[in-house]
Amino acid sequence: MRITSQFDSGNIEVVDATDPDNVQLAIRKDAQSEHAQWFHFRASGVRDIPLTLRIINAQSCSYPKAWEGSRAVVSTDRKTWTRADTKVVNGELQIRHTSSSDAVYFAYFAPYSYDRHQDFVAEMAGCAGVAHDVLGVTLDGRDMDRLQVGTGPTVLWVIGRQHPGETMASWWMEGFLRRLTDAADPIARALRERARLHIVPHMNPDGGFRGHLRTNALGVNLNRVWDAPTMSESPEVKLVRDAMDQSGVDLGLDVHGDEELPYNFIAGPDGIPSFSPALQAKLDAFLALYERANPDFQSLHGYPVAAPGQANMSMFTNQVAERYGALAMTLEMPFKDNANAPDAVFGWSPERCARLGASTLHPLLEILPNLQ
Amino acid sequence: MRITSQFDSGNIEVVDATDPDNVQLAIRKDAQSEHAQWFHFRASGVRDIPLTLRIINAQSCSYPKAWEGSRAVVSTDRKTWTRADTKVVNGELQIRHTSSSDAVYFAYFAPYSYDRHQDFVAEMAGCAGVAHDVLGVTLDGRDMDRLQVGTGPTVLWVIGRQHPGETMASWWMEGFLRRLTDAADPIARALRERARLHIVPHMNPDGGFRGHLRTNALGVNLNRVWDAPTMSESPEVKLVRDAMDQSGVDLGLDVHGDEELPYNFIAGPDGIPSFSPALQAKLDAFLALYERANPDFQSLHGYPVAAPGQANMSMFTNQVAERYGALAMTLEMPFKDNANAPDAVFGWSPERCARLGASTLHPLLEILPNLQ
Amino acid sequence: MRITSQFDSGNIEVVDATDPDNVQLAIRKDAQSEHAQWFHFRASGVRDIPLTLRIINAQSCSYPKAWEGSRAVVSTDRKTWTRADTKVVNGELQIRHTSSSDAVYFAYFAPYSYDRHQDFVAEMAGCAGVAHDVLGVTLDGRDMDRLQVGTGPTVLWVIGRQHPGETMASWWMEGFLRRLTDAADPIARALRERARLHIVPHMNPDGGFRGHLRTNALGVNLNRVWDAPTMSESPEVKLVRDAMDQSGVDLGLDVHGDEELPYNFIAGPDGIPSFSPALQAKLDAFLALYERANPDFQSLHGYPVAAPGQANMSMFTNQVAERYGALAMTLEMPFKDNANAPDAVFGWSPERCARLGASTLHPLLEILPNLQ
Amino acid sequence: MRITSQFDSGNIEVVDATDPDNVQLAIRKDAQSEHAQWFHFRASGVRDIPLTLRIINAQSCSYPKAWEGSRAVVSTDRKTWTRADTKVVNGELQIRHTSSSDAVYFAYFAPYSYDRHQDFVAEMAGCAGVAHDVLGVTLDGRDMDRLQVGTGPTVLWVIGRQHPGETMASWWMEGFLRRLTDAADPIARALRERARLHIVPHMNPDGGFRGHLRTNALGVNLNRVWDAPTMSESPEVKLVRDAMDQSGVDLGLDVHGDEELPYNFIAGPDGIPSFSPALQAKLDAFLALYERANPDFQSLHGYPVAAPGQANMSMFTNQVAERYGALAMTLEMPFKDNANAPDAVFGWSPERCARLGASTLHPLLEILPNLQ
Repeated sequence: MRITSQFDSGNIEVVDATDPDNVQLAIRKDAQSEHAQWFHFRASGVRDIPLTLRIINAQSCSYPKAWEGSRAVVSTDRKTWTRADTKVVNGELQIRHTSSSDAVYFAYFAPYSYDRHQDFVAEMAGCAGVAHDVLGVTLDGRDMDRLQVGTGPTVLWVIGRQHPGETMASWWMEGFLRRLTDAADPIARALRERARLHIVPHMNPDGGFRGHLRTNALGVNLNRVWDAPTMSESPEVKLVRDAMDQSGVDLGLDVHGDEELPYNFIAGPDGIPSFSPALQAKLDAFLALYERANPDFQSLHGYPVAAPGQANMSMFTNQVAERYGALAMTLEMPFKDNANAPDAVFGWSPERCARLGASTLHPLLEILPNLQ
Repeated sequence: MRITSQFDSGNIEVVDATDPDNVQLAIRKDAQSEHAQWFHFRASGVRDIPLTLRIINAQSCSYPKAWEGSRAVVSTDRKTWTRADTKVVNGELQIRHTSSSDAVYFAYFAPYSYDRHQDFVAEMAGCAGVAHDVLGVTLDGRDMDRLQVGTGPTVLWVIGRQHPGETMASWWMEGFLRRLTDAADPIARALRERARLHIVPHMNPDGGFRGHLRTNALGVNLNRVWDAPTMSESPEVKLVRDAMDQSGVDLGLDVHGDEELPYNFIAGPDGIPSFSPALQAKLDAFLALYERANPDFQSLHGYPVAAPGQANMSMFTNQVAERYGALAMTLEMPFKDNANAPDAVFGWSPERCARLGASTLHPLLEILPNLQ
Repeated sequence: MRITSQFDSGNIEVVDATDPDNVQLAIRKDAQSEHAQWFHFRASGVRDIPLTLRIINAQSCSYPKAWEGSRAVVSTDRKTWTRADTKVVNGELQIRHTSSSDAVYFAYFAPYSYDRHQDFVAEMAGCAGVAHDVLGVTLDGRDMDRLQVGTGPTVLWVIGRQHPGETMASWWMEGFLRRLTDAADPIARALRERARLHIVPHMNPDGGFRGHLRTNALGVNLNRVWDAPTMSESPEVKLVRDAMDQSGVDLGLDVHGDEELPYNFIAGPDGIPSFSPALQAKLDAFLALYERANPDFQSLHGYPVAAPGQANMSMFTNQVAERYGALAMTLEMPFKDNANAPDAVFGWSPERCARLGASTLHPLLEILPNLQ
Repeated sequence: MRITSQFDSGNIEVVDATDPDNVQLAIRKDAQSEHAQWFHFRASGVRDIPLTLRIINAQSCSYPKAWEGSRAVVSTDRKTWTRADTKVVNGELQIRHTSSSDAVYFAYFAPYSYDRHQDFVAEMAGCAGVAHDVLGVTLDGRDMDRLQVGTGPTVLWVIGRQHPGETMASWWMEGFLRRLTDAADPIARALRERARLHIVPHMNPDGGFRGHLRTNALGVNLNRVWDAPTMSESPEVKLVRDAMDQSGVDLGLDVHGDEELPYNFIAGPDGIPSFSPALQAKLDAFLALYERANPDFQSLHGYPVAAPGQANMSMFTNQVAERYGALAMTLEMPFKDNANAPDAVFGWSPERCARLGASTLHPLLEILPNLQ
């Protein structure tokens, strides 16, 4: 058998793959960083062979606790990703799987390649009423694509994949943008009429291509530099923040995945200097509207609320809320599943991400009056 | 040139088609009935020839006033239906069109064949969790297909195409059922968990096939016999009402098209003996929820409200509301367009019907607590 | 359980369907004719119930011997048709099947509806370089569609479905015409450059819709009237033969299905008055070219050759060969399977028909030099 | 405006892109090599702006003469590639184009990404009767995928993309393999029964990803090392030749593109030591069969024939013919167009490559008897 991760968003190191029943693997760290948790590789020559794959450095990854309850995704056609038998054994992550195909792909979540990103941006840019531009380039020289939709006065910014291993953000974007550009959809039409949406579907194409979990080509966690991004180390954020400075922001949404919690939830800009009951009310309103639009979203489980003045201003949500007086939020989707509505075969899936993305048009439309 | 309507849901009589610039046509009446307004035919041998088609009996059709503002749909591939230049001239309906194809189809609204109905029922019946049965047969011997979805206690009935020329109901059903059976959609999942839905996508397959506007094979307007349906004259209603008697009904929705009003709206069971503020409240709640879920729906324009005790109990909505103590409603979609959001190319279209159908899951789910 | 055939191309009479294990059915005769063999019906309410379906009048059908070795096709989605357990028992045709779906369709061969014919003609008529016209109407008033492709001097006529129960001809036509209109296919391009093809994909839409095996609406076997067609009894043939008189014919191909022989083969115009070694040579050349282009075709098994002067001039192939001095041929495909390459699951299938149709472009192109 | 080639198979250097009417570009050389001719880039911010793109190092590329008559391909959706206005001006290649989209891709021929290669291999490996294995890895660590199809005794090897800029080989492979694995295709079935096909769809994934014209990651022209491949410099060839040594080879086909000649043609192993009239006869037979199967192929135009004993044994075709006593051939498709059947809009296109690939099953099947 052979194992390779030499492709877009691949990540694995083969320690020893001589015995299919005892394959020892390690997750490569993000470049110049201590972060590691994303994996994506292909095993070939494995038809009908029971595999036991051990990720032996699981405990030195970014979120060792998160492995508990995680299940790797597996696919032979690179389209349908089901969940594999996965458990934590002696601190290692152990995946057991027997494939009826010669070759099979494994990953932490359904991968999303840069090639698909290019196809998707081209498709969206070809829709009526959509403007595309390039804000600048990443450290590795990739274009930072922005799409703009809508003609209304309220300015909404929606970004995803700051953390490149959180591919659910890209699947969410497909659902979100396909509906937003749907000529026949009346919620989309209303939103297009009343707002101007700026969308950066992929904030970190370098990290995504490199198979990183959380950082860009220099090992920078983009969601920790919104207070002081630089062209030399975090151009991805600098370019987007500059564009935001130009457009202003009434609402900002940053789409992420969470390794640990088996829920979809939102973190708000609590703890920023200007936090106010009015902002809390907007946030609460949005959460309620989102929950109503999509029961896969919930507001019971989530991150602890930051104490007043304790917000980390280097994060998108806090910086954007403070800087523009905007309602800014971080959406988190699970790597695992939605524990309120578990799916034994697929767990939380690209299809469900897309439905969640599409349904986001409801709260965005309904919150508009509150934003002015 | 030649004109034919000898196919599924075709309807036209050729009075004189010798001069393309002056083609005289008449709409055939529904069998044993005075009703007439649906048309659907193909003109061939017309490439690059300016056509003037005159529907000379427009004034003796069912809704002569409705022609004002109506625009025929036209298609060469039977998939994409745009609107043709149409106006009322001297009481006739005049369609002017030049096709770059040899043959072109015209209709009152995008047609929906019985063949497609069969395909669609087979597709839906193949989805996980869907039960299909046949309640009995129509006068012409066609099966009355019922689909059942969901495992919850509340009983919802949704029917369409009582008036067979109102094909928008079938396009609505496609959107409604495709979403209802979507394994990844959380609104659908919640609705399936909390309710049992009985759906009769096509109440009048005979009338549909025959190219009728409003009646079944014997010329019976099905939506005027819910108080006393018979197997000999209106088995379509008798079979469904019997099944309703067996299941009970908490909510009933009957999907229609309106020839005149350029809006989507709902008519409630006002005027029935048991009408009450509580029922009014449920109705109002549903309307508000629907409007919110889909801005193509509105509640400003609609039919006049029946005075207390003046309800026509032969209609689905009134009979079902009274008989089962249910919230029963008639949904009307326009033949023309939604005047609040007009589309110059397509008018009200199959795609928009499907979006409206899909969005109906929102109010259905949200009204459930009110129904008990 | 319920059984219906009240739809496009349906055919069955229910004698007794009270006991799923002993369902007695009879095939309806073609209108005003003794012919019968085509069946097509839906059984509903049958999930997980072992069915034994008995066609009790199998022996009085047109080709009782052909039942031996026949296997009914079965489908739940109306798209994928597999073969059901079928055998002759006491002279009856017995189909045994258990479906995991509520409803299931059975037929003699994968059905092809008039609705699909309309869609297909519209699709083909929309291809670049294709002309569509209507030659006239059938007895039931359906349009006789002709498609013309190509700009070359040699005149080829290809027709199908004279016998409407031989639906394989329609699947063949899809493969044939899709390739013929393929802009990127060089065989198609060469053929379009060198010949003018006249194609009548459906010679008998009335019989097809009615669920007939061999005849039109008046019970006329169209392939027995080519010597003297009339507008009153066989307009389908009269209209096409008149058009042929106008265009001339260099080659004529008539596509059929054979109930008995498990092979694809061609019958030529042997036995016509003008039959000659030269014509025999053309025929032999075509057979060899076809066999080479598609190994599902063969020339070992087939009909007996007519003795000199004994040709039945009422058949397309003989009439066309004699009348126009053309190479005329009848292509037969099996209802059963190709015994040289049997497929246990599908038997002879729509997909294989389409491949055979597509490959027909090779011998048509290569025979052109021989035709002049 | 911005120009980027930072993606799979991208290649361009921006010299000066400040003036859309005078954009100066240069083609990057293959790594450690003098070869250069492939280009592939995206220009953004160009909606409705007339562009003049100058490839200023056109004369120092590998085939400067080939630019004459070449036309760049252009696409906005990355799916449909038409030809752009292109000409040689003062030795430079000048592309003039105005796009109605914000962003537009340009390339030398329709690109084929490694991501698509992975998808395609996964799709093919999932077909019944297909075996997939990995022969080893490239210099950059990518897997060398081999597919095996068929159960017959004759051994056929088909490889493509030795020269990675010749992407037509990949489009050809899609047509070839899709037909070869088609369960319903009788030519494919016969070929599968009579031969064992070893297919390496992509010989040079490193070069392809890097945007090279002719070489691998070390600048090695793979088609010049078949006599002495090494794991250190040309593992791609070494791995495949070793596998050939193991299987033996009866026929070898190597799929390429030619920058200059506007024809599809084949170069044989003329000039090898063992060349013989018998081998010439096999080659002639194959050419005739191919020409017959696909008129886009021809044998009039091509490369000059090598004199006896003058064959370059480092090339696939010569080495394989000599080493295994096989009929070995190089298939060349044009970058430009087929001058015998030019297409003003698309030129030689992915679709036509695929048709040529699919039709290759005919000569492969028919030559089998000659190979033994």
